Amino acid sequence: MSHSSGTDMALNFSTASLHAWNGVSLLLIIFVTWIISGMSQAKSKIERLLICWWALTGLIHVFQEGYYVFTPDLFNDNSPNFMAEIWKEYSKGDSRYATRHTSVLGIESVASIVLGPLSLLAAYAVAKQKSYSYIFQFAISIAQLYGTIQYFLTAFLEGDNFASSRYYYYSYYVGQSSIWVIVPMLIATRYWIKIHAICKRLQDKKVTKVG
Amino acid sequence: MSHSSGTDMALNFSTASLHAWNGVSLLLIIFVTWIISGMSQAKSKIERLLICWWALTGLIHVFQEGYYVFTPDLFNDNSPNFMAEIWKEYSKGDSRYATRHTSVLGIESVASIVLGPLSLLAAYAVAKQKSYSYIFQFAISIAQLYGTIQYFLTAFLEGDNFASSRYYYYSYYVGQSSIWVIVPMLIATRYWIKIHAICKRLQDKKVTKVG
Repeated sequence: MSHSSGTDMALNFSTASLHAWNGVSLLLIIFVTWIISGMSQAKSKIERLLICWWALTGLIHVFQEGYYVFTPDLFNDNSPNFMAEIWKEYSKGDSRYATRHTSVLGIESVASIVLGPLSLLAAYAVAKQKSYSYIFQFAISIAQLYGTIQYFLTAFLEGDNFASSRYYYYSYYVGQSSIWVIVPMLIATRYWIKIHAICKRLQDKKVTKVG
Repeated sequence: MSHSSGTDMALNFSTASLHAWNGVSLLLIIFVTWIISGMSQAKSKIERLLICWWALTGLIHVFQEGYYVFTPDLFNDNSPNFMAEIWKEYSKGDSRYATRHTSVLGIESVASIVLGPLSLLAAYAVAKQKSYSYIFQFAISIAQLYGTIQYFLTAFLEGDNFASSRYYYYSYYVGQSSIWVIVPMLIATRYWIKIHAICKRLQDKKVTKVG
């Protein structure tokens, strides 16, 4: 069951170098965004972290997932292409990517075309302290949450047997995708509490006025 | 291509009586909810309409869609069962219901288990003027919107050829499902505007204080 990518014909990068390049790219995005966010109007470390998250998830949605959506023959591409290799590697955790399963393609399409650009706009909105930033971040997080739930649920409904081994099931499929459950849930909760508090204060004020 | 349900072995009700019973049930729900909402704390006709919508969509999610999700052998049921007949009829517009396609089953599961009970709670929240009602209605509408977009998108990605005729394609598939694009979009827009206005007012006040 276990895959050793060194012997896998389709992979032109070693698994270790893929992970290394991917990790370095993502850390670089976070690092650069963190520096830029320090020059923005962000008021707290949490807001700077939020800018980093929206930039990171936005770039992943637009470029990484966008590449997947708009490159149908990606798994037949044998040239050493980093973007294609990433998806060949991830498909060890979820073979629906290799077969371009409709459930996966539907979710990835919405992520890359809609949620990606909106996430980048959210990074801007937080950096500029736009008055719509609360409700905007809340909306994107609810949509991301729905998407990831569908992602796991559609696999579950078909027997949850799309990983090439238990290792890839937990490290790739569960491990990586659950980030898009945890973070959107945290952000949605944060802004639910903030928006609710503002609405409640306004309501209490009105009641006081009338009374 | 066109189906005449009078000659369809699977259907124990005539199409006309199915439509009549379905229409009467839905109108009855709206009528009863409208009356009850008049005795609630709802402040305007729009709020009373919102209570009707949340009760209606909640009951449809829980009972109609819940029946579909939890009755896997529904299309083999030849006894005269109104709930089963409704789905046999609707599947003329989208045969993925008859084959229990994963995309449809995933969306219907979330609708019946999560969004249904939440919609009924939203009806209560508006009726009781709860301070969380704005953000709550916004959240459910975004989730419904995502679900319906996935519903149409997954059919599109597989060739959009699941209706038994053009008539059923437009009247059932497009006609009925697009209600869950239009209404959630209207509600999401309404509460985006309201929440944004409240946030903006608070922000302006803070800026004034500092200045």
